Amino acid sequence: MSKAPSPEPERPTTFATTSGLERKVCYEPDPKPAGWDAKVGRPGEPPFTRGVQPTMYRGRLWTMRQYAGFSTAEESNRRYRALLAGGTSGLSVAFDLPTQIGYDPDHELSAGEVGRAGVSIATVEDVETLFDGIPLDRVSVSMTINSTAAVLLAFLLVVAKRRGVPEAALSGTLQNDLLKEFAARGTYRFPVAPSMRLVTDVIEHTSRRMPRWNPISISGYHIREAGATAVQEVAFTLADGVAYVEAALARGLDVDAFAPRLSFFFNAHNDLFEEVAKFRAARRIWSRTMRERFGAKDARSLALRFHTQTAGSTLQARQVDVNVVRVTVQALAAVLGGTQSLHTNARDEALALPTEASAMLALRTQQVLAHESGVADVADPLGGAPYVEALTDAVEREALALMDRVERLGGAAKAIEQGFYQREIERSAYDAQRRVERGETVVVGVNRFEVDEPPTDPAFRLDPETERRAVERVRSHRARRDAATVRGTLDALATAARTSENLVPRVVTCAEAGATLGEVMSALEGPFGRYAG
Amino acid sequence: MSKAPSPEPERPTTFATTSGLERKVCYEPDPKPAGWDAKVGRPGEPPFTRGVQPTMYRGRLWTMRQYAGFSTAEESNRRYRALLAGGTSGLSVAFDLPTQIGYDPDHELSAGEVGRAGVSIATVEDVETLFDGIPLDRVSVSMTINSTAAVLLAFLLVVAKRRGVPEAALSGTLQNDLLKEFAARGTYRFPVAPSMRLVTDVIEHTSRRMPRWNPISISGYHIREAGATAVQEVAFTLADGVAYVEAALARGLDVDAFAPRLSFFFNAHNDLFEEVAKFRAARRIWSRTMRERFGAKDARSLALRFHTQTAGSTLQARQVDVNVVRVTVQALAAVLGGTQSLHTNARDEALALPTEASAMLALRTQQVLAHESGVADVADPLGGAPYVEALTDAVEREALALMDRVERLGGAAKAIEQGFYQREIERSAYDAQRRVERGETVVVGVNRFEVDEPPTDPAFRLDPETERRAVERVRSHRARRDAATVRGTLDALATAARTSENLVPRVVTCAEAGATLGEVMSALEGPFGRYAG
Repeated sequence: MSKAPSPEPERPTTFATTSGLERKVCYEPDPKPAGWDAKVGRPGEPPFTRGVQPTMYRGRLWTMRQYAGFSTAEESNRRYRALLAGGTSGLSVAFDLPTQIGYDPDHELSAGEVGRAGVSIATVEDVETLFDGIPLDRVSVSMTINSTAAVLLAFLLVVAKRRGVPEAALSGTLQNDLLKEFAARGTYRFPVAPSMRLVTDVIEHTSRRMPRWNPISISGYHIREAGATAVQEVAFTLADGVAYVEAALARGLDVDAFAPRLSFFFNAHNDLFEEVAKFRAARRIWSRTMRERFGAKDARSLALRFHTQTAGSTLQARQVDVNVVRVTVQALAAVLGGTQSLHTNARDEALALPTEASAMLALRTQQVLAHESGVADVADPLGGAPYVEALTDAVEREALALMDRVERLGGAAKAIEQGFYQREIERSAYDAQRRVERGETVVVGVNRFEVDEPPTDPAFRLDPETERRAVERVRSHRARRDAATVRGTLDALATAARTSENLVPRVVTCAEAGATLGEVMSALEGPFGRYAG
Repeated sequence: MSKAPSPEPERPTTFATTSGLERKVCYEPDPKPAGWDAKVGRPGEPPFTRGVQPTMYRGRLWTMRQYAGFSTAEESNRRYRALLAGGTSGLSVAFDLPTQIGYDPDHELSAGEVGRAGVSIATVEDVETLFDGIPLDRVSVSMTINSTAAVLLAFLLVVAKRRGVPEAALSGTLQNDLLKEFAARGTYRFPVAPSMRLVTDVIEHTSRRMPRWNPISISGYHIREAGATAVQEVAFTLADGVAYVEAALARGLDVDAFAPRLSFFFNAHNDLFEEVAKFRAARRIWSRTMRERFGAKDARSLALRFHTQTAGSTLQARQVDVNVVRVTVQALAAVLGGTQSLHTNARDEALALPTEASAMLALRTQQVLAHESGVADVADPLGGAPYVEALTDAVEREALALMDRVERLGGAAKAIEQGFYQREIERSAYDAQRRVERGETVVVGVNRFEVDEPPTDPAFRLDPETERRAVERVRSHRARRDAATVRGTLDALATAARTSENLVPRVVTCAEAGATLGEVMSALEGPFGRYAG
């Protein structure tokens, strides 16, 4: 549907207003409030309240990274190419539930779910198709994958090797955050301890060999979607981050060897100023935690970098076009909060997977903010606003108090095993729902300004042949390979899983031999067991 | 299409964030910058930099006033009722060009324009139909009418009288700003001096008898749409305001008798922070001008109240849904800037008059900002932000310099007669166009991120029968009335126009006798002459 994309030019060197008024890169209060330099500081400097880059979006805009994926690798590849042609600057792969939990398309638990919530991937060849014609050394690839993150990483490494792209040249992100799966999202497979071990294997492997790779995206997004408040989102996400740092330190890694590549993932919700304050508070807390608690010395270890997605839970199935307005305000919050990359939801996501047209409109939303609104011309434009600084302080104070409670329960993993996160989130979700029911929280078109309208038909429909073809493909794959070699690599993996050996190279060996995603996960389930939920 | 509207409840008394964090009504820097109290002050206090109400939208939201009108009075009445049922809180009438310039539908100059750009009004009966079922003492009515403002006011007064609504109970606004018609908009009829006289007649009449009526809406909107910068918009609009104040003072009115009812009308353009600064600077300049130059004592005379419309000129005919994003950002600027009322453009206005669905989405845009984003919970939320305060100072400084140039040319009327406004606006428009052509200004979908798409078909089509029926209606009206009485009132009006008598009561007499809009304007053209353009 698109012409060749206009090339992304250098950002202009002057950033004047429409009236020709000068804009400075950053503004500071004069006089400064007491303690300003230590507490707020400048953009690009600890504690990074005002953002992780000195000039923020003047140098480079945030990455416009649209989460997409459905049906088969071929179909998803087509959507990625359309998004890239439309001006998206990074990819974000959505996987279907079987791929996320680790079942091949022909597994009985996969029935009805193949290709539904995202793309179905079972083999190295599927990943090859998924990224066909996409230069892996130039386009960064984010993957929303957790329990099976090590397998997807291995598949990607095999594809890169076959294409002659060096491991070190790959840039991208694995979500790889199991704690929030137990707390809020649910695509877990193994119990907490072996899950943490696999997470740490990935962190260790990439920190040694893939300097441009983010081995984890510590995610508050789903915690918020499950009903948490902004304060809970910050506190639980950063507490999870603390747990991952401790696990990596326990593995014997130096903090400054891996901490610069830890990345985060937050929600951009409705309350514009609270959201901006949330992002600023999160950066400040993380910076101080890394320095004071973990003794990080490298400034990059102190800088909290994050991806943002607008809040899917706020989108409504009625009067769907109104969702474009919600997404615009939420995206603005992410940008004013200094996000590094952003997914804007499509207006019809409350109904089904977005159509190509609505996915493109979601991208255009970011482009209008980036290129027409002027908001990218000044770093932390709201910094120093008494309201925003007060809210930032308040979010920080409340989040630190909640992190302390997690700490007193023995840290994130233990708090989650005891159901603490889950109960706190549930209470917030219940309160929020009651406020909607009582009309204290207005949802336009839902509890106010309702209209009679016919239910909107989801425009996107999954091809019913998708599942059958995926089953055929994985079966024909199994028929073509050397079964004995595959069995040998899987047995070796299972054996290694009982030791403390880093499993990533073993999984790569399985993948090269032709093992499927489901087979690798089955091999690990022997030694690891299954999480009861 | 709509259920009965949910009643507008009282605004809640707590304004906490989603996390339950307290929000104060207003935040101030601590410590305050030098000169803060005199220069910025508090919301609701001179110089009103931070807004005209102490609690701003906590007490009452801005009026959601959607500009609408097309075809016949019946059709427009139907649209108004739909908007009111959908939650709009004030009406804003768009008139067609013949009505704006003062020709009846059967005049040769009206051909092809009847009911096109707005509703066609020729008689008191048309106004009766236009507001059928709408309580004029409870719904405020704004009318975009200038050359014929006195006639529309007279028609409305006759309708109110017939319904038993006292003159003093009417609330609403006449645009009635002729200076910007000469400078930028073009619906003038008489030369500058008699135009200023009619404007002042309306101000005088309503200031004595209609305490809830705004007799003028001094408009920067069209100046901006014609290509002016934000600074020019402020400077020329306020210079026009100065000219109207001087004309009213020359009439012998006391400044505090009319100044509290002067109102303004600004554009909300793309550059979010510059726009917020523009609104704040405009309030400060006006407050100081009224006090220091005109000796106003009543704080209400110092408070610049304004309506805002999002920038129609920024909307694109390609990828029309992207306009929803633009309108959202612009509407946010108006709200963060403290507007008293707001029209949000419909996404398809670049193609044609909006459909009912797109007009409703435009209204929903305001409702999401008002009820879901939290931005209405704090007065002047950006106040004290060093960036926004610096931009406010810069807009103020540059606008004052430009107002000085207008003053040196002898004031707004003389500057416009000499073409000064026009040349300055034209230069800005040319510069802006060149920046777009060179790609320095990005317009999403126009000079970047273009896609091949079929031209969108305007969804709205004017009924071709509209004009014929309007012609029939005005002719049958003329046939029914007492022609001699009408002639007598029109002759008396023309005679009075040669004196300094206030013409509004005379026009009311004409209207009561059954004179049409075109006949009143013809009667005045004898003594006044026509503006050559």
